[in-house]
Amino acid sequence: MNGQPVPKEKLDYILEAARFAPSSSGLQPYRLFVISNRSLLEKIRAISFNQSQITDCSHLLVWAAWDRYSYERISDVLLKTSQERGLPDDTADEYKNMLWGLYEPLDQEWHRNHSARQAYISFGLAIAAAAEQKVDATPMEGFDSAQLDELLGLGPLGLKSTIILPLGYRDEQGDWLVNLKKVRTPKEEFITELV
Amino acid sequence: MNGQPVPKEKLDYILEAARFAPSSSGLQPYRLFVISNRSLLEKIRAISFNQSQITDCSHLLVWAAWDRYSYERISDVLLKTSQERGLPDDTADEYKNMLWGLYEPLDQEWHRNHSARQAYISFGLAIAAAAEQKVDATPMEGFDSAQLDELLGLGPLGLKSTIILPLGYRDEQGDWLVNLKKVRTPKEEFITELV
Repeated sequence: MNGQPVPKEKLDYILEAARFAPSSSGLQPYRLFVISNRSLLEKIRAISFNQSQITDCSHLLVWAAWDRYSYERISDVLLKTSQERGLPDDTADEYKNMLWGLYEPLDQEWHRNHSARQAYISFGLAIAAAAEQKVDATPMEGFDSAQLDELLGLGPLGLKSTIILPLGYRDEQGDWLVNLKKVRTPKEEFITELV
Repeated sequence: MNGQPVPKEKLDYILEAARFAPSSSGLQPYRLFVISNRSLLEKIRAISFNQSQITDCSHLLVWAAWDRYSYERISDVLLKTSQERGLPDDTADEYKNMLWGLYEPLDQEWHRNHSARQAYISFGLAIAAAAEQKVDATPMEGFDSAQLDELLGLGPLGLKSTIILPLGYRDEQGDWLVNLKKVRTPKEEFITELV
C-alpha cells in the first residue's frame, strides 16, 4: 500500500457495513477496533510476520470477538433490541432462555469459534463495502492473536482478536501481485446445482 | 418468503460473489450447493427446526467446507493457480510446504473451524450481493449439519455443511419481522478508534 489516507466518508461507509452485518440471533458477538495510530501499527506489524501493509495502510481494522457468550451478554442485547422496537421488556425472554440453554453447556472453544464465525460475516460485508468504495483491503489472519489481545487490552473486555484488515490504496509500482490474474475454483467445480 | 423465483441472472450474480470471495491463502476450502429441488427442500426443512423459508424460498444455498486441509488439496489449488497465471509449476512449492507444516499438526477441529470461517467470508459477500440485487436472504445456522451432510452426500466428498441461505422474496403480509426496526449495537459501543 502507498500510505494514502482513506477519506473519512469512505471509511465510515465501510465501518457501517461491518456494523450492520447480520449475526446469529442478532447478538453481534464482536467489536471493531479501528487503528491509525502509527506507533501502535508498528507494534502490530512486529507480531504479524512483519507484513508491510500494516504500517503502509491508512487504517487497520481488527475484529475482536466475544471470548464466550454469557447470559448477561445475551440478555443485554435482546433487551435493548426489544426496547428499540418499542416492545415489552420480556418479549424475548423465552427465546433468551432457549438460546442460553443451548450455549451454556458448550465449551469455550465452541463459544469462541461461533462468535468468530459471526465476525467473519461482518468482515465479508466490510470488504464488499471497501470494494464498492474503491478502497483496497488485505485480509489477514497471519498475526499473533494472543499478543494482539495484550496490546489492545482485549482480555479484560472479554474479547479475542480474530481477523484484521488493512485499508488503503495499492502501491501500483511495488505490488508484485497487482498484475497477476485473480484465480478462483472454476464454476463447474465450485457449484453443484440440485434442481 | 412468497415463493417467487429469483431470476437466473440475479442468482448468478450472487453465486459469483460467493465464488470470488477471498480466503486464507486463496484455497477456497468450501463448495457451494444450490438447491431448488422441492422434495429435497422438504427434507431439509424437516431437519432445520421446520423453518418455512427453506421451502418458501426460490433457491437454498449451502456452504459446505472442507472437513480438513490436506497436502493434496493445498497442492492442487496452488498448482492450478500458478498454471493459470502462466508461472512455473513449482512457484508456490516453498509456500505450500510452509503452510502444510503449519496445518498438518493441528487437529481436525481446528481444520474444520478454519475452513468454515473462510466459508463465512464467502457467505458475507453473497448476502451483500443479494442485497444489491434486491433479493431477500435469511441466514441460517439452525439445521442439523450431520443430517444435511448425509442428505447431500457430503461425507465422501470430504465436505461438511456450515451455513445455509434461503434466497427469495419476502412475504410482506406474512412476515412479522418485516416492519420491525433493524437494531444494531450503537456505533460508539461497537467501534473503538485508536488514533
